[in-house]
Amino acid sequence: MVVEKMPTSDLQVNSAQLSAELDTLSKISQEPAPVVTRVVFTESDLRARAYVKSLCTAAGLILREDAIGNIFARWVGAEPSLPAVGTGSHIDAIPNAGMYDGVVGVLGGLEAIRTLQRAGYKPRRSIELLIFTSEEPTRFGIGCLGSRLLASTMSAEAARALRDKEGHPLDTVRTAAGFTGDLESVKLPADYYAAFVELHIEQGPNLEAGKIPLGVVTSIAAPASFRLWFEGEGGHAGAMLMPIRRDALVAAAEVILATEAAALASGAMDTVATVGICDVFPGAVNSVPSRVRLELDVRDTDSARRDEVIKKILATAEAVAARKNITVKTKWTNADEPAQCGHEIITALCAACEAGGHKYQRMVSRAYHDSLFMSRITPVAMLFIPSRDGVSHRPDEYSSPEDIAQGVEVLARTLATLAHGDTSSSAARQS
Amino acid sequence: MVVEKMPTSDLQVNSAQLSAELDTLSKISQEPAPVVTRVVFTESDLRARAYVKSLCTAAGLILREDAIGNIFARWVGAEPSLPAVGTGSHIDAIPNAGMYDGVVGVLGGLEAIRTLQRAGYKPRRSIELLIFTSEEPTRFGIGCLGSRLLASTMSAEAARALRDKEGHPLDTVRTAAGFTGDLESVKLPADYYAAFVELHIEQGPNLEAGKIPLGVVTSIAAPASFRLWFEGEGGHAGAMLMPIRRDALVAAAEVILATEAAALASGAMDTVATVGICDVFPGAVNSVPSRVRLELDVRDTDSARRDEVIKKILATAEAVAARKNITVKTKWTNADEPAQCGHEIITALCAACEAGGHKYQRMVSRAYHDSLFMSRITPVAMLFIPSRDGVSHRPDEYSSPEDIAQGVEVLARTLATLAHGDTSSSAARQS
Repeated sequence: MVVEKMPTSDLQVNSAQLSAELDTLSKISQEPAPVVTRVVFTESDLRARAYVKSLCTAAGLILREDAIGNIFARWVGAEPSLPAVGTGSHIDAIPNAGMYDGVVGVLGGLEAIRTLQRAGYKPRRSIELLIFTSEEPTRFGIGCLGSRLLASTMSAEAARALRDKEGHPLDTVRTAAGFTGDLESVKLPADYYAAFVELHIEQGPNLEAGKIPLGVVTSIAAPASFRLWFEGEGGHAGAMLMPIRRDALVAAAEVILATEAAALASGAMDTVATVGICDVFPGAVNSVPSRVRLELDVRDTDSARRDEVIKKILATAEAVAARKNITVKTKWTNADEPAQCGHEIITALCAACEAGGHKYQRMVSRAYHDSLFMSRITPVAMLFIPSRDGVSHRPDEYSSPEDIAQGVEVLARTLATLAHGDTSSSAARQS
Repeated sequence: MVVEKMPTSDLQVNSAQLSAELDTLSKISQEPAPVVTRVVFTESDLRARAYVKSLCTAAGLILREDAIGNIFARWVGAEPSLPAVGTGSHIDAIPNAGMYDGVVGVLGGLEAIRTLQRAGYKPRRSIELLIFTSEEPTRFGIGCLGSRLLASTMSAEAARALRDKEGHPLDTVRTAAGFTGDLESVKLPADYYAAFVELHIEQGPNLEAGKIPLGVVTSIAAPASFRLWFEGEGGHAGAMLMPIRRDALVAAAEVILATEAAALASGAMDTVATVGICDVFPGAVNSVPSRVRLELDVRDTDSARRDEVIKKILATAEAVAARKNITVKTKWTNADEPAQCGHEIITALCAACEAGGHKYQRMVSRAYHDSLFMSRITPVAMLFIPSRDGVSHRPDEYSSPEDIAQGVEVLARTLATLAHGDTSSSAARQS
């Protein structure tokens, strides 16, 4: 891909309109403001999709939805048969989340397109806004469901085997939400996109701490998540004597502590490990826990270091199980490889920052995103804007309108540069 | 109370009918058999109450229900103005429980009355079967709700402040279940009963291990239960770096381990401590836990030793909180005193065992029961039958029909003895 200069016209982001749209979308939530909870295929998610689609239609974009609910909104280019340039993110939100995670890349991506439209820009390649289904793992236990299917890193068969926490199969849930097509059809052809670039909040403290408004992401950390089931023996909390107990929660507590210890022991700042879910059965104050399910998330930019942490956690689980005569079963949810971002997109992002006179830094993404999976089928990169206090996945998550506008401006310039590129998508993929 | 000999007539327990009734009641459950889940004031609980009341009516007993739903079924004696002799237990069941806990004392108590009726026995004092509301703490967080109100160890005001896990006030829930009277009216007068005796499964391994079919309970262990709320800081599991985390679940895990350690360190077999509930917020695999609620249950036959264990647990919680910059709040649910059983009822139970030629042993109850609270207003004792493998609060809880029938026979003989006693209930209370 030959990277050309952006037309010199000044790009005017409509920050007021974008802020108003962010605000409207934040109120489509399962919980009262400022809490955003928008779990995939719930009524809130469906209303949010309708709102975003109405904005895309108003911008003259051509809409398409696939069988898992990924939304494609295309600004058709002068040469529509060329691989398109993609941008986008997600609008689903975990319980008790904030209003910027994902959404900035969706509404900001749309505003980048509108900014180019207002500037009189005409794309050669089509530019497509992509809203991914279920980036968050809340409902089906696995993140990036939409992009995994697009990139074929998850098979349709594996997706059909997923169930939500109430035990409903994915197919039942998506059908009820109106998505009835064949999951096999979600997969994108290898030449669908020439490039994909995602605008996102940092979800960490580095940009704010360095007073740098933009981060050009050069690699995305490797996430692994898995479940541990502990099965011991229940009984009456008053009558079951301590020496004979096989308490599943006491065993799980040792593993919770070992998880923190293993991540701290790695010595690298990029290593993080979390037990986010601890479900106790039967869950009565006067009953010894017989079963516990832990869900763990371990990440690193270095997959070997990450796997070492996981090995330590599993070794502790086995040792505790043997000592306490408890069984432990492991089920892997995912263990993905890290992604390196596309060199030419990184170059375009850096050039766009410079063209606008904005400071930026190259950085890694410790959180993972749909771009990680899109990287399997097309060159990707990401653009980060600051998160106040590094906070995310909380109602007080915040990015300023000024920072968002700068991100949108740089994204617009980058999309324009990429959409004017030549037709050689294979060259880009080799970057 | 002068303990007289039971009429020498042979008592014939109808074990087949009792087994059939136990079986029928076990199927009135929120979960399919063999799981019994019957939470107070749910539809299953109301259907179970209707079934038990129909059996009481068929036995000619006079029914009364109070404002909290305690059911009184009275076999009116020759001198109905005398304080009555009470027996009974509960029919509510924790999630994933079995079919004998509580129920053996209710249907077995009824069969004891029918056995005496068939033997031609005529009671001097009335004999009353009492089915207590919400012995289990599942719904409102506190056990023995019905007996606490009967004995005034909980005020009507405190009861009105209770809410279930969905936040519904007790008054709303009981009204919806059809119990509309004034909670103040639940309190029993001090001379209502001359004695109360409860048949129950042991819920522990001692009788089975000793091949002894009957246990005469001489004291009931002192339970204490409380909640601990940990509040740290949430955030994205990928982006929040380990050294700055304030993970509420990691803090709680230390307290779970300290709870086991403190109970083991007491050195007494009668000391038990359990964390039965661990609720994590927000409870997403990719979110650092910001809040955790633990519910703890600590018991002992010696309340000073029990309080020492609680002191250690709370000291650990405070130390962890300080070290991890997390706040911990404690809320007491109950901290009751142990009960000594009434000497003359114990004597009557032992005599009844001997009259039937049954082996028995004196023992303490490590589980607590409605009898603990009834002991505040009348002399009480309990009669235990073996639990297979000491198991309770589980679907595989089991007591044999033979053991149940022996318990019923001894209970019947004891009730007859007590109902023939003299009118001096004050003498009995001083036992």
